[in-house]
Amino acid sequence: MALKLYDYWRSSAAYRLRIALRLKGVDFESVEISLHPDVRAQHSDAYRALNPQIRVPAIEVEGQVIGQSMAILEWLEETYPTPPILPSDSLLRLRARAFADTIACDVHPLNNPSVLNVLKGTYGADGDAISVWYADWITRGFTALEAQVAGHDTPFLFGDAPTIAEITLIPQVYNAQRFDVDLTPFPTLMKIDAACQKLPAFAAATPEASKP
Amino acid sequence: MALKLYDYWRSSAAYRLRIALRLKGVDFESVEISLHPDVRAQHSDAYRALNPQIRVPAIEVEGQVIGQSMAILEWLEETYPTPPILPSDSLLRLRARAFADTIACDVHPLNNPSVLNVLKGTYGADGDAISVWYADWITRGFTALEAQVAGHDTPFLFGDAPTIAEITLIPQVYNAQRFDVDLTPFPTLMKIDAACQKLPAFAAATPEASKP
Repeated sequence: MALKLYDYWRSSAAYRLRIALRLKGVDFESVEISLHPDVRAQHSDAYRALNPQIRVPAIEVEGQVIGQSMAILEWLEETYPTPPILPSDSLLRLRARAFADTIACDVHPLNNPSVLNVLKGTYGADGDAISVWYADWITRGFTALEAQVAGHDTPFLFGDAPTIAEITLIPQVYNAQRFDVDLTPFPTLMKIDAACQKLPAFAAATPEASKP
Repeated sequence: MALKLYDYWRSSAAYRLRIALRLKGVDFESVEISLHPDVRAQHSDAYRALNPQIRVPAIEVEGQVIGQSMAILEWLEETYPTPPILPSDSLLRLRARAFADTIACDVHPLNNPSVLNVLKGTYGADGDAISVWYADWITRGFTALEAQVAGHDTPFLFGDAPTIAEITLIPQVYNAQRFDVDLTPFPTLMKIDAACQKLPAFAAATPEASKP
């Protein structure tokens, strides 16, 4: 039976899971929960009953709907270990997870629509102010990440194949480009982005390829 | 040799690691990196060279300094598996990690000092406005978490002993209390907080017990 993924094409956290599912060749069924401001399907009573956090992505396991993309990536790795999305070496595994968490815990949360809505609604931020806010957090995070991985000597960040690090990086680069963030200070990150875009699992998981 | 922890007594992400290290009985040396606004030791050239993300906590492994508390918790679990801080059952492990990530990815990042500084500096938020912002994200996250775990029938959230879920929850409750957030809507979370406070590993890891 296909794994049920509560999904939205433009959600970058959902994009992470689409990449991982395709890398691992897991059969999945995408259930569209539109976060579009005119639809806001995540606020429907039906979805709230399934997932009280009213966010995507989420998956259904043993009849339970569970969210949080980074927790789900760990579950995918344990449940479908081949090919791995974590390095086999302990220190590299720590570094790959720390890289991913810098995006998942320090960059992406600041640019979530729920946060931008408060900035607009409570603080009167206009489009330009939102762009400055958005770019600031990406630039801070990417500056730290570029320093950590510049000069790495493997085809991908932590070895010969993409890991959880690329799985979180590539959707964040997509968001950065969508908001016209200057990415020229991050040549290592951009080289990895280009390498990943050539892989079928990444190409099939993009927002454009995932529109319903 | 003691594990080196770059630590700050009031950092709730560092507090997570102090709890986990004590639960597992790992010998560690706390290296104080004061985040106090009058000190800002994280911005020193020496610390920036060690950890370009200029945040705490971080640990030193094989001569490398690596940050991100959630990645470090996974490394601790792999390196010092007894007692475990993840449930042995796959679905419970997913649920415990998802619980923890709701705090680590959706609540705590919004209330980081770096974010509050932008709200104050760029948006002119005063103390009352900061309190409203702070409480809002905690209330949203805790509302989802309370719904997820209300009615659980084990001594702790996901079994007979605390896991990564309690390790992230208790420092977040501490922060909530510090900012006078109303926690009465979250009786299950508060019951778990009280149960954890009675455990020596949690009591020894509090900010007050960790002041230099």
